[in-house]
Amino acid sequence: MQPYALTVDKFLDHAAKWWGRREIVTAEAGRVGYAELRARSNRLSGAFKALGLRFGDRIGTLAWNTQHHIEIYYGAMGAGFVCHTLNPRLTISHLAAMVNEAEDRMLMVGAGLAGIARDLALRCPCIETVVFLDGEAPQWEMSGDCRTFAFEALLQKYGAQTRWGDFDEGAAAGLCYTSGTTGAPKGVLYTHRSTYLHTLRSLQADAIALTPADSVLVAVPLFHVNGWGFSFAGPAVGAKLVLPGRYTDGARLAKLIREEDVTIAAGVQTIWLGLLDHLDATGEEVPTLKRVIIGGSRCPDALIQRMEERLQARVQTSWGMTELSPLGTVAPAHGSERAVASGRPPMGLDLKLTDAGGRTLAQQRNVSGHLKVKGASVVSRYFKAENDVLDAEGYFDTGDLAMIDDDGNLTITGRSKDLIKSGGEWINPGEIERIVGRLPGVGQVAVIGRADPKWGERPILIVELQKSHTLDEEALLDALRGNVADWWIPDEVIQVADMPLAATGKIDKNRLCAEYARA
Amino acid sequence: MQPYALTVDKFLDHAAKWWGRREIVTAEAGRVGYAELRARSNRLSGAFKALGLRFGDRIGTLAWNTQHHIEIYYGAMGAGFVCHTLNPRLTISHLAAMVNEAEDRMLMVGAGLAGIARDLALRCPCIETVVFLDGEAPQWEMSGDCRTFAFEALLQKYGAQTRWGDFDEGAAAGLCYTSGTTGAPKGVLYTHRSTYLHTLRSLQADAIALTPADSVLVAVPLFHVNGWGFSFAGPAVGAKLVLPGRYTDGARLAKLIREEDVTIAAGVQTIWLGLLDHLDATGEEVPTLKRVIIGGSRCPDALIQRMEERLQARVQTSWGMTELSPLGTVAPAHGSERAVASGRPPMGLDLKLTDAGGRTLAQQRNVSGHLKVKGASVVSRYFKAENDVLDAEGYFDTGDLAMIDDDGNLTITGRSKDLIKSGGEWINPGEIERIVGRLPGVGQVAVIGRADPKWGERPILIVELQKSHTLDEEALLDALRGNVADWWIPDEVIQVADMPLAATGKIDKNRLCAEYARA
Repeated sequence: MQPYALTVDKFLDHAAKWWGRREIVTAEAGRVGYAELRARSNRLSGAFKALGLRFGDRIGTLAWNTQHHIEIYYGAMGAGFVCHTLNPRLTISHLAAMVNEAEDRMLMVGAGLAGIARDLALRCPCIETVVFLDGEAPQWEMSGDCRTFAFEALLQKYGAQTRWGDFDEGAAAGLCYTSGTTGAPKGVLYTHRSTYLHTLRSLQADAIALTPADSVLVAVPLFHVNGWGFSFAGPAVGAKLVLPGRYTDGARLAKLIREEDVTIAAGVQTIWLGLLDHLDATGEEVPTLKRVIIGGSRCPDALIQRMEERLQARVQTSWGMTELSPLGTVAPAHGSERAVASGRPPMGLDLKLTDAGGRTLAQQRNVSGHLKVKGASVVSRYFKAENDVLDAEGYFDTGDLAMIDDDGNLTITGRSKDLIKSGGEWINPGEIERIVGRLPGVGQVAVIGRADPKWGERPILIVELQKSHTLDEEALLDALRGNVADWWIPDEVIQVADMPLAATGKIDKNRLCAEYARA
Repeated sequence: MQPYALTVDKFLDHAAKWWGRREIVTAEAGRVGYAELRARSNRLSGAFKALGLRFGDRIGTLAWNTQHHIEIYYGAMGAGFVCHTLNPRLTISHLAAMVNEAEDRMLMVGAGLAGIARDLALRCPCIETVVFLDGEAPQWEMSGDCRTFAFEALLQKYGAQTRWGDFDEGAAAGLCYTSGTTGAPKGVLYTHRSTYLHTLRSLQADAIALTPADSVLVAVPLFHVNGWGFSFAGPAVGAKLVLPGRYTDGARLAKLIREEDVTIAAGVQTIWLGLLDHLDATGEEVPTLKRVIIGGSRCPDALIQRMEERLQARVQTSWGMTELSPLGTVAPAHGSERAVASGRPPMGLDLKLTDAGGRTLAQQRNVSGHLKVKGASVVSRYFKAENDVLDAEGYFDTGDLAMIDDDGNLTITGRSKDLIKSGGEWINPGEIERIVGRLPGVGQVAVIGRADPKWGERPILIVELQKSHTLDEEALLDALRGNVADWWIPDEVIQVADMPLAATGKIDKNRLCAEYARA
């Protein structure tokens, strides 16, 4: 059969040829068809070359979900450069460590982020060029030899048609660091092949399943694991992409959904809480919406139900990781089956459950085990690390504890490093969180281990209630009795007004432990 | 990212793990779950090894759509052997030429095909073993050293658990010869990679789009281009597969659709004509059917409309070729858009239209050109051929003439070798056939060139009417006037009771030319 490298530029080529007038819309900015987006992105590759970038060089982005960001994805990857997305909500020292390790030669900076960029440029001598996106003009003189451009001026001055692809599918395409909620951030270097195959995997009719008839609200940040791949899946099938830009509050999202006839919306649960609260407050409706895909941490059943009822849309829960590109499992897109836990793995990812020693459990259903995965879009070695992180059978340890039901639905029951050792036995905080999280009035919930002179550790329960609810501590603990072992019942309930979240929206257990875990 | 070879055994592994109880049903035979199918197929690999087959060896199949045939697919491919499907409707000499070129060491023989197999074994010294499927016992003694087995006895005696995969994705998996309607048959050797990627391509939500909620009637012969890939796509998503076995008449298909709650049915148009005639005659209904996928030659609009109305199902027209694995284009699976022509190419296949000299046409829409294709599942060199069949840009010449409309829908307007040269100018028979084929009462239609002393060639029109219709020759020709150039109007109309079909169900123009094309 033909040699045919699986490179991601082919997605935008396909869109330009077959869906040239389908649009990418940026909130409060403008719209462009795939044919023009392709032409602009391709000319951007020429500008990157003119500025001296060489095959494999990294380009950092510190940017929101806008057209310019997608153009950078393709302008970089199409010509063999690596798009290194950075999360603007991280601390400067985290960001600087990432930029320096990645040796980013350029930094692309979105609206309102010039200050962070300036600090980064000072700390990162590798940055030679800073480019301001979204219509912002360079706001300050850079020190030394660092050049600055406005995006459109760069494109106009140096843009040139460039040959895309034409290299091995094993070439690097993207770089993203893990969130670092549970340790030092580690870089995951995606290849063209891994990204291409991840896209085809997500396009399966029972997975993310975009079609040309869809208008897709990408409320997932493009800086977070390739924005779950929508910038590839959209062009691959000619779906319309709707980008919220910098702000993702409920009012703005509701407006976008209505104005752009959004049929599918994707984002973490906090985003959807904001949308629901806005709709409840205003009485607005979002009638075109058919499906909502939820990523990030596990979604409480009560929230799923609230979304289904208020949005009259199908909810697809999912589970993924930076190391998985990120799609692991997802609830079905169609059919009579409602979302259960985090759904099943679409074809292309192998899962197994092992014991703590790495031995595959004989029984893979209805028991909790350490979750290991294998696939063409799964990390084998972190960026610049010396060693692979795979077991003897080639599986990656997710660090998650999980259970799979009879129908194959995956429930993440906790993180192996969150396990609490009490009296020599393990308590899984995740199972307690799941039960309490289902109770009416409960918003976010976390269980952490507190040092205990007698037992080693004892669990404590930290809870943030939904607005206008009050706490009955005993009711929370009563709900656990009979559902977990007695000695799993937390010793204390602590109520917080705002659960501390890490930059990715997940609960920041490091901060909780620092604050509450000492005896 | 991880090394992860794209080998087809992973489809059945996935099905066994996640959809172990979903069934493969064979008409009038039985049913098996994917977990058991996987175990049996894997043991079959062991039997192949025990009989001395080595990596890359070919196994011929002369068989219908039954469970055994699917087990042979996986039993062969999983262990690195090549499944060489043979069309029982070809002549013995065609078949013998294929078996000898492929050097098939085993021949797997379906119900009622023992006679052909015996003749083949006599003509093909490479055949060492003949295996009888579908419950048939060996019916005769083979000469010399050729062994014979009944399938189940072979499995019981030599079956053994075997390690699958674990080889390069570039390894050969399947072999299929082109139909030979327009020249000598040529072998296309599919690799694991090409087949895996073809499967993911077809699974896209707007393409073939199977889901676990589907029950799929595979009325496409498994001996024809991997049965369009349903034996891979089904297990990949856990769809139920319904196999009609040896007979595909309307009555049997209607019964299967009703008894097995079929939601998607795939086959060539003659199959669906049989189903429609049966339903019309009996008044039966097929209420579970949602989609019908039509392959093979272009489907007349009148038939599409009749199917939509009578079956109350969505019709997906398509275009494909043995050399393309075979999916080229397909009409959308969902949305408000009805099937237009042969639909669009799902992501993963590049198309271009060129002139006769191979130059890409500047305008790719609304003009007829020579259709060239490129992709990971497209042939580059025929089996055992010395040279690639690609142009300078790596495209394969389909031999088809085609036009693409503004929405991207492909219409095959003819075969380049069917073009009729009249007075030094080209007439495209396909365009005439399309117009006449739309007329009420017209069944099959073909235009061929007849040698003409003055013009070189002149077109003649050959037509088979639908039952209980009579012919008004002038009305047929009148329909052409104004729609094609005057000198394209055929010189003669010939009515036939039965249009001659090649073994694949396409009109056999070679036979028509032999019969009618001499002056």
